[in-house]
Amino acid sequence: MTTIKCIGILTSGGDAPGMNAAVRAVTRCAIYNDIEVKGIYRGYKGLITGEIEQFKTQNVSNIIQRGGTILKTARCQEFRTPEGRKQAYDKLKEEGIDALVVIGGDGTLTGARIFAQEFNYPIVGLPGTIDNDLFGTDVTIGYDTALNTIMECVDKIRDTATSHDRLFFIEVMGRDAGFLALNGAVAAGAEAAIIPEIAMEKDQLAETIESGFRKSKNSSIVLVAESEVTGGAMGVAERVKREYPSFDVRVTILGHLQRGGSPTAQDRILASRMGIAAIDALLDDQRNVMIGIQNDQIVYVPFSKAIKNDKPINRDLLDAVRILSL
Amino acid sequence: MTTIKCIGILTSGGDAPGMNAAVRAVTRCAIYNDIEVKGIYRGYKGLITGEIEQFKTQNVSNIIQRGGTILKTARCQEFRTPEGRKQAYDKLKEEGIDALVVIGGDGTLTGARIFAQEFNYPIVGLPGTIDNDLFGTDVTIGYDTALNTIMECVDKIRDTATSHDRLFFIEVMGRDAGFLALNGAVAAGAEAAIIPEIAMEKDQLAETIESGFRKSKNSSIVLVAESEVTGGAMGVAERVKREYPSFDVRVTILGHLQRGGSPTAQDRILASRMGIAAIDALLDDQRNVMIGIQNDQIVYVPFSKAIKNDKPINRDLLDAVRILSL
Amino acid sequence: MTTIKCIGILTSGGDAPGMNAAVRAVTRCAIYNDIEVKGIYRGYKGLITGEIEQFKTQNVSNIIQRGGTILKTARCQEFRTPEGRKQAYDKLKEEGIDALVVIGGDGTLTGARIFAQEFNYPIVGLPGTIDNDLFGTDVTIGYDTALNTIMECVDKIRDTATSHDRLFFIEVMGRDAGFLALNGAVAAGAEAAIIPEIAMEKDQLAETIESGFRKSKNSSIVLVAESEVTGGAMGVAERVKREYPSFDVRVTILGHLQRGGSPTAQDRILASRMGIAAIDALLDDQRNVMIGIQNDQIVYVPFSKAIKNDKPINRDLLDAVRILSL
Amino acid sequence: MTTIKCIGILTSGGDAPGMNAAVRAVTRCAIYNDIEVKGIYRGYKGLITGEIEQFKTQNVSNIIQRGGTILKTARCQEFRTPEGRKQAYDKLKEEGIDALVVIGGDGTLTGARIFAQEFNYPIVGLPGTIDNDLFGTDVTIGYDTALNTIMECVDKIRDTATSHDRLFFIEVMGRDAGFLALNGAVAAGAEAAIIPEIAMEKDQLAETIESGFRKSKNSSIVLVAESEVTGGAMGVAERVKREYPSFDVRVTILGHLQRGGSPTAQDRILASRMGIAAIDALLDDQRNVMIGIQNDQIVYVPFSKAIKNDKPINRDLLDAVRILSL
Repeated sequence: MTTIKCIGILTSGGDAPGMNAAVRAVTRCAIYNDIEVKGIYRGYKGLITGEIEQFKTQNVSNIIQRGGTILKTARCQEFRTPEGRKQAYDKLKEEGIDALVVIGGDGTLTGARIFAQEFNYPIVGLPGTIDNDLFGTDVTIGYDTALNTIMECVDKIRDTATSHDRLFFIEVMGRDAGFLALNGAVAAGAEAAIIPEIAMEKDQLAETIESGFRKSKNSSIVLVAESEVTGGAMGVAERVKREYPSFDVRVTILGHLQRGGSPTAQDRILASRMGIAAIDALLDDQRNVMIGIQNDQIVYVPFSKAIKNDKPINRDLLDAVRILSL
Repeated sequence: MTTIKCIGILTSGGDAPGMNAAVRAVTRCAIYNDIEVKGIYRGYKGLITGEIEQFKTQNVSNIIQRGGTILKTARCQEFRTPEGRKQAYDKLKEEGIDALVVIGGDGTLTGARIFAQEFNYPIVGLPGTIDNDLFGTDVTIGYDTALNTIMECVDKIRDTATSHDRLFFIEVMGRDAGFLALNGAVAAGAEAAIIPEIAMEKDQLAETIESGFRKSKNSSIVLVAESEVTGGAMGVAERVKREYPSFDVRVTILGHLQRGGSPTAQDRILASRMGIAAIDALLDDQRNVMIGIQNDQIVYVPFSKAIKNDKPINRDLLDAVRILSL
Repeated sequence: MTTIKCIGILTSGGDAPGMNAAVRAVTRCAIYNDIEVKGIYRGYKGLITGEIEQFKTQNVSNIIQRGGTILKTARCQEFRTPEGRKQAYDKLKEEGIDALVVIGGDGTLTGARIFAQEFNYPIVGLPGTIDNDLFGTDVTIGYDTALNTIMECVDKIRDTATSHDRLFFIEVMGRDAGFLALNGAVAAGAEAAIIPEIAMEKDQLAETIESGFRKSKNSSIVLVAESEVTGGAMGVAERVKREYPSFDVRVTILGHLQRGGSPTAQDRILASRMGIAAIDALLDDQRNVMIGIQNDQIVYVPFSKAIKNDKPINRDLLDAVRILSL
Repeated sequence: MTTIKCIGILTSGGDAPGMNAAVRAVTRCAIYNDIEVKGIYRGYKGLITGEIEQFKTQNVSNIIQRGGTILKTARCQEFRTPEGRKQAYDKLKEEGIDALVVIGGDGTLTGARIFAQEFNYPIVGLPGTIDNDLFGTDVTIGYDTALNTIMECVDKIRDTATSHDRLFFIEVMGRDAGFLALNGAVAAGAEAAIIPEIAMEKDQLAETIESGFRKSKNSSIVLVAESEVTGGAMGVAERVKREYPSFDVRVTILGHLQRGGSPTAQDRILASRMGIAAIDALLDDQRNVMIGIQNDQIVYVPFSKAIKNDKPINRDLLDAVRILSL
């Protein structure tokens, strides 16, 4: 075990609200433990190109409430090659960085895992993704904020005048995971959620829609996860228009606004706790683990476990959507 | 001049935040002046079918802050026919309603104008539309809220990580008028607004985009008014993708969420003042006028004038968008 | 075991965001299971006076997003007397109500417990209080919303110009429990939290404040739980002004605005799940239990256990506040 | 007339949302016109001490949406002395700053006026204050945001359960001007506003309160401007408690949270237009004027006129509060 005197911190992949709160916590907790901190910009890309800056406690002042990430993120093809990773390793040596804290989703942790193995280099990961699709943690940084953003948008749509037979399809993020669509539907009181985990046959969609109107509701709101499996809101809308030409179908695509916004209290507290835990883990000689939270307790999850496993959705919520849109 | 003992109130067309505040003000100010109030549901449709209810002051309690309209709105083909309007007139007589206050946009006021002429019936209109496209009033009820909603959405999109050459096209409402897109672009600090009033040639769009990137900005945000003239965000995005295949183009369609949400202070105050003014106007024997606000003063605008004229946008704001996105 | 054909539902005590979502879920899940629902207004008071109304699914339409409670709440001295409770029991019999679902905090559940024992009457409770001070559930309905409301207020205060030696004391709710003050301080990045669980000696307060200024921060924000133990924000401010006359001390008392606002996604989902669970529990012949959530699983907590035990705060968060305000 | 090659910009006094949008607009419009920009920190204080930094267009990126002011503000006793102002003047010469744009309220413009006369130095002022108490402009930067903040807080308070005879007194800013309290009361549907412009006799307050309860409202909300004239919310509450011991009186003091928050669309557009106008004015050889907006047109207001005159409130709104709380 080598003593860690200096850590690097980076955010990578799609950004998520709360990443700044995590950067702040990692930075301040490191400094509190007399560890130097270097901020690495634009993820693995900036690690290779050397976009690196010394971070003092002031660098992370007044950022806990801000969306996005002050460290920026970027995709990085080079880091997928052995040559790119070698360059990154050399840069870390050159900068005197003894360990890395990386914040991001599946792709970020996969990169971290390969790099850590290749160079026997200590890395701790924080789960930062609005999709909540990492195994080993009950919740990821950014998920709660995105969920609230979606809910507030749906609330506004429900405000508008209710005309008969009007069907709103609202596309939310979640390429492989229906957490946002399903929980968003419960939170917003929507009539249905179409998610990648459940292949919805044409008949089921029809049943959902028709039963909605049988209940003599004025209008129905359906959340659709943006996914090849679901076809997205546009795809579903096309299908419905073909089957029910009389329906007045409207589509809203929330897009990247789901990634933004000031983080919620839950995301900030989660990010703060996880940021402190990352430093604790490094001091405890833990490495190549993702910090997770399970039953409100901090846990260490090996990268391989966090990445490879699918996190199941709570199927009771599907029933909840159905029962509560009665 | 006949004494007005009972008025009817209805909201019609696309709903707008602040309509409830207007309904509240009309109702309470009428009751304050010992005039009876009847709420008519679903616009002209409910007038014909008789979906009418006596309104007391409690009926409008706790609604000033709510989006949508408690009176609902609907489209109504029948009211476009002489037969339909005759039915409406008979219903008004039957219910003992001496005058109408109608809240809505261009279509609503057009209907009111025809009806008022046909039956020599007193009507006062309130301008309720998020598009701000009524002549004779500086601002319409709902516009300020929609503008803030758009701005908050764009704020969230700007939060997300800035990748090079990423172009966001955000579609906002405004079929015939660019107020929301143009003012939204100023308020959100967007790089450009594409609006129906200004036919933007392919070259100009290119110039706008390229100059944006020349300034070495990381990403650009363009607001696009949903309109046949502009082609909408999807249309513009298609054109850009063809010309600049290297750009990472993203589309967000805000859709009906722009119509919802709790009204802003400006919309509530405007609606409250206009609602009081509507009763004042009727008591003052004014009729067949829209209540407008000009230079912060209440004015009466003949229906014909409010409907027929185009309200010009402030072209200085186009310069503002260009200069401030420097 | 008697078959339950009709339930009554009431909210009582200080209201909490999410109560409406719970009322909606209980109502719809009951109707889904062919159980009749009666809404009881103003808590135990309306139960005694018979302010009771049949609830259909439409009665709870469009309320999931609304703060407060459509059933109102009230304090009720009569229910604390055997005579009052007897009247309540007679009213339940008269109305044909076979079981009660009550939503509220400590006082509400205490009343429920006494009543249930006295008359051997089936009651299920839902924990609805922003203070989060009920044992047996990780979180109560309303807590997450209040926490976010507090955080957003503190965010605004931090926005304002930072003058040297300015100290803001912000009073938040939590007469006996520091959850809101402590978690609010972490979420808002405040410099300290003064909570009833930790008697803060004058010296500690001084140390906290002085260390804050030693760090050359421009201004400090301290959250103070409204409590006799802490003395409230005004009390703390007086002490500090006496000790540090040079400080520019400002006080904000958030007051009842913490109880309001549209509930967050977490509160709505929690309330929806608990509402469904309440009906499930009654169908399962459970009674005189509070529905709790532990490790994301629904649990049944005997009233006595929920009321009598103190829920401990997470002391790690005290360290987090200290470390992160570095 | 000397050509202006370099301007300085500062914010001073109590900060107001939209100041950053103004700083951005001034900076970018100056650079657009090939004028150099220097940002001066902490108002007149930083001018004297030389806390001055060159501003490029990037310095004002991504600030339009942020509350507070990136330039900070401070009170400055030295600038009230001829010696202090001489130091400031010397610093301006030393830095090569040819003209100043100052953003603030009454005190800021008073300082600017004296300085401009003393040294025959060109200054343009922007009205930045949440109180809206500057003459010559219909509205000041920050007012609309503060008004919306107040309204949202009152909305939350109204959400909470309505108990009989409960009276909420909510203290808002406005030492000398009742704009926020009066317009806030209209926007939030409050029962009354107590403002410095109208000396409310004990009898009137009693009348207001009693008439409120006569209307059998469950609870009443009164906005009180923080002022020696009104006595503030605590003062009014004390008086009421003495007169009506049976009332359940609650006090909320919003305090500095009214100064914070992301600016509204209106404030950002106003600040952007005024910022551009400030540079236009300097290029047009205007000086020692405040930029105002009247009837949506930019105007130049001599400092003396802006400062010395009282802006009247719209008394119709007092009637509106009374009629609409029927």
